Amino acid sequence: MPTQTQRKTVSRPPAAQMRPSRRPPRAIRVQQAAPDVDLGGLTDHLGYLIRRAQLWIFQDFIRRLAVLDIRPAQYSVLAVIKANPGLSQMALAHALGIERARVVHLIDALEARRFVRRQSSNRDRRSHALHLTSEGQRALLRIRELAAQHERHLAEKVGVANHKMLLRLFAVFARS
Amino acid sequence: MPTQTQRKTVSRPPAAQMRPSRRPPRAIRVQQAAPDVDLGGLTDHLGYLIRRAQLWIFQDFIRRLAVLDIRPAQYSVLAVIKANPGLSQMALAHALGIERARVVHLIDALEARRFVRRQSSNRDRRSHALHLTSEGQRALLRIRELAAQHERHLAEKVGVANHKMLLRLFAVFARS
Repeated sequence: MPTQTQRKTVSRPPAAQMRPSRRPPRAIRVQQAAPDVDLGGLTDHLGYLIRRAQLWIFQDFIRRLAVLDIRPAQYSVLAVIKANPGLSQMALAHALGIERARVVHLIDALEARRFVRRQSSNRDRRSHALHLTSEGQRALLRIRELAAQHERHLAEKVGVANHKMLLRLFAVFARS
Repeated sequence: MPTQTQRKTVSRPPAAQMRPSRRPPRAIRVQQAAPDVDLGGLTDHLGYLIRRAQLWIFQDFIRRLAVLDIRPAQYSVLAVIKANPGLSQMALAHALGIERARVVHLIDALEARRFVRRQSSNRDRRSHALHLTSEGQRALLRIRELAAQHERHLAEKVGVANHKMLLRLFAVFARS
């Protein structure tokens, strides 16, 4: 509904760009549903659509990062450790909203690949301070290149203006 | 960037409504990250933000539907069987983008609760035609009421106008 307080902004994308393309996404691995299956009102639920979108996005990420054998959660862990050297597993789990046990498992795998090392913390001998190794730092550089390619592909898919708008809109969930 | 083709529409929400609220979401169970943890650029990735949003949305759904002991995937299955009586497990799996084995497991649980029954298909004796029982039909009515409450809560959280816009934008992923 238009209101008297509606402001005109120059940064808003044209209405035509707000609408997603009608054609189905490219490079989808999930088999297409038979077109005569009625989704029974599920498409009125944002949660359903966001879950499908998330699966599509993660599949694209996994495919593009397959040459480096890196999945989304591993990338998240490496990026946050890089930005916070010495972080504890607990703090990492909180920051990413991942269960503690899963973080331990993720770190185990990244340690086995010599990307991450655990150091006994000075403050608390039971906890570990996480650091990237120099090999981990180098790997992260390559990972970031492919992650950026993935992001550009996603921006093309939803529209560059929509992509920016969505990043702004969903920022509220970043630490939810 | 404004362009000459930019159209003015009356249905576009005011710019102020496009921005999510700065205050953190209510009723979050996941522990808040320490504010000094740097997310290392992850918030520039739509996939990261959408994953966090999806987790928030599913947690809200699970909490509101807890009295009926129904989770998002169970609701999806019931809604699609209701809309397509006699559907096969294979077609259901395709429509929802869920792995076949997981659908079998979901149907097992819903059959044990007498919400769903499997009937041998006339066309193919190995496959099963899925139907809601009358108990399943009644349960789905109650489930839909709470699911609608959840959706209204979500619309309040992101803004009613944003909610509509997001449903339109993500429709492209509905059958991805």
